[in-house]
Amino acid sequence: MRGMKSKVPLITMLTDFGQQDHFVAAMKGVIAGICPEARVIDITHDVAPYAIQSGAFLLQQAWRYFPERTIHVAVVDPGVGSARRPLLLSAGGHYFLGPDNGLLSFALEEARAQARQLTQTRYMLPQRSATFHGRDIFAPCAAHLAAGVKATAMGPKIEDALRATQWKPTRLARRQWSGAVQHVDRFGNLITNFACDEFGAGMAESFALTAGTEAITQLVACYANAPRGEACLIAGSAGYFEIFLREAHAAKKLGLGVGAPLELLTCGKI
Amino acid sequence: MRGMKSKVPLITMLTDFGQQDHFVAAMKGVIAGICPEARVIDITHDVAPYAIQSGAFLLQQAWRYFPERTIHVAVVDPGVGSARRPLLLSAGGHYFLGPDNGLLSFALEEARAQARQLTQTRYMLPQRSATFHGRDIFAPCAAHLAAGVKATAMGPKIEDALRATQWKPTRLARRQWSGAVQHVDRFGNLITNFACDEFGAGMAESFALTAGTEAITQLVACYANAPRGEACLIAGSAGYFEIFLREAHAAKKLGLGVGAPLELLTCGKI
Amino acid sequence: MRGMKSKVPLITMLTDFGQQDHFVAAMKGVIAGICPEARVIDITHDVAPYAIQSGAFLLQQAWRYFPERTIHVAVVDPGVGSARRPLLLSAGGHYFLGPDNGLLSFALEEARAQARQLTQTRYMLPQRSATFHGRDIFAPCAAHLAAGVKATAMGPKIEDALRATQWKPTRLARRQWSGAVQHVDRFGNLITNFACDEFGAGMAESFALTAGTEAITQLVACYANAPRGEACLIAGSAGYFEIFLREAHAAKKLGLGVGAPLELLTCGKI
Repeated sequence: MRGMKSKVPLITMLTDFGQQDHFVAAMKGVIAGICPEARVIDITHDVAPYAIQSGAFLLQQAWRYFPERTIHVAVVDPGVGSARRPLLLSAGGHYFLGPDNGLLSFALEEARAQARQLTQTRYMLPQRSATFHGRDIFAPCAAHLAAGVKATAMGPKIEDALRATQWKPTRLARRQWSGAVQHVDRFGNLITNFACDEFGAGMAESFALTAGTEAITQLVACYANAPRGEACLIAGSAGYFEIFLREAHAAKKLGLGVGAPLELLTCGKI
Repeated sequence: MRGMKSKVPLITMLTDFGQQDHFVAAMKGVIAGICPEARVIDITHDVAPYAIQSGAFLLQQAWRYFPERTIHVAVVDPGVGSARRPLLLSAGGHYFLGPDNGLLSFALEEARAQARQLTQTRYMLPQRSATFHGRDIFAPCAAHLAAGVKATAMGPKIEDALRATQWKPTRLARRQWSGAVQHVDRFGNLITNFACDEFGAGMAESFALTAGTEAITQLVACYANAPRGEACLIAGSAGYFEIFLREAHAAKKLGLGVGAPLELLTCGKI
Repeated sequence: MRGMKSKVPLITMLTDFGQQDHFVAAMKGVIAGICPEARVIDITHDVAPYAIQSGAFLLQQAWRYFPERTIHVAVVDPGVGSARRPLLLSAGGHYFLGPDNGLLSFALEEARAQARQLTQTRYMLPQRSATFHGRDIFAPCAAHLAAGVKATAMGPKIEDALRATQWKPTRLARRQWSGAVQHVDRFGNLITNFACDEFGAGMAESFALTAGTEAITQLVACYANAPRGEACLIAGSAGYFEIFLREAHAAKKLGLGVGAPLELLTCGKI
């Protein structure tokens, strides 16, 4: 929803904290204390523990649908308490707070991206643990930002924020590509890293996508068009082709997960 | 809470999207962009994948407790992207948006029920995927409705919205009924389809409810009154009799789930 | 966030209702009908069924991070519908509603703690089930409190609210203590009942903590400092020492859970 401005300060949260503990609530309590008018929306807290890459994928999928000036707090942070820096990025008209471990590096590719290191302790909790910077650093800084503190006041600009390598397909031969499964969703659909924009035309005629022992050759327009029990490909809502089984869990049935290698052979030109 | 009017536009969400992905957040981002003042309340996102009947049961249990004019968005939608229509129902003073697959058919029984097909693309996202109408159609239409667009502007009235068959007990003999388990809750309680209103009087004296190999003959006033280890019946908060085991998971212990057949024999008149 | 006042009435919820049913939504609907301007924040709904002690631990960890005057609704209530009383506590500048079964007894230790029995049915739903007081009693009373009804109007003061025994370490010898695991978090970290404040100095020099077959002798400053595969101790964010395995699930790997006995031997003085 680019170009729209939110009237209420909006903060999203993405973590690997789960929902069975008090962690997320403590962060929301801190925010409510500093900026009671801020609205908090969960992206997810069920990122697999320490899975930085998964967290990055999900935040990348969600953030653009929020209004400009939304503040995204992302905490998947195995290095909490160590020398890794806490970051604030302004990018694409949004703000992103999280550890400097690659989780936010996709945002560095956005328009007007600017990274700062969070250093101003007056915007953090007075007592900071070594194990829970979500509560002690990221939530209060996000709340102060929501309450009107300028990003420039939060800490100095830095130029060397970590840029994680993007997980992109590589060309093996003229019409042959190597790719990977980058996400498995709740339904067991395998989201590949073949972008619809880039690979759609080349696959229009015919193609073969090898995933484990499966060779997928059917592209369908909607889930309900697929024959049951046969792995098919669909142009997914995330902008990537997805491997799915109609009303079944493709990941379990095909024995494939995040990182599983894929090989694509197309007849059309890419 | 009939008869009360909400000051803030209220939108509820019920889906089978789970909470580990970006799906729900993308919908909430879309809503926040269109109608920032709307408050969104999750009913649940943990409906079993594609389980239309379960989703309908849960929404039926929850919606009446919300204020009038609440907008309920429900997406359990295996047919997404196919010819099935997207619906907007006004019913019982509330609004319901979701696919025309039976999920919302209970609302057609309500006072002043009226069904429309969502056709006005100006209230949808400009780019619509074939796999995620929650984000691309239902969320933005709900948000525009919350922002003041009239239901009548959203699309034409239709008279043939799908009516799913209700899961009701059938009479086998004068005081003998066949029923079914219609829901298993988090605690493992088995919610039957014997309504307390209808069957309560007949069971006041004595009864036998056969569930699998179990014959249940005790009706208790509260969970804590049941002897441990013995399946009992209670008048549940959903308005139906429930089979439970005190502080134990009746569904697992009795090996019964949704759809399990029940047989009720009463001494009283029904 | 003591000393701060919230502009919006704030209600938190902690239950063992899970998230797959309609229970939590029904409570939020009731609140929205009575006090539409109240903001509701979930602490967690994934307390293990009937686990009063776990619920108490989590609420204790979360509540202080919320602004003064926050209303905390806590429902882990195996005795629902029986003679156990529904409580309203004012304590430490906050409000707490829940059953009189020990869940809220930690709040009785707070400054200006005062307990009342909820008796005024005009602040409850007109129809009250015997199985769901969260919806029928606690949510509507909390919402009326948020809407401005005085605590004193909700029911009479009582002096005999249940005080659950606190789970504290006991001294075995001069520098030898017996303790227990009081919580296992999402990451599998084992939160002990050895408070950092109390035991930190004594452990500064050297110590041995026996947990199952493991003898833990290393205290690290942050998770990332621990050698992989070796159980270590850390001063956790909850104010207690935690046993953890770096980026692994200590509870599963060590075969320990809530209630597991611990033995601490220190060289320093405690």
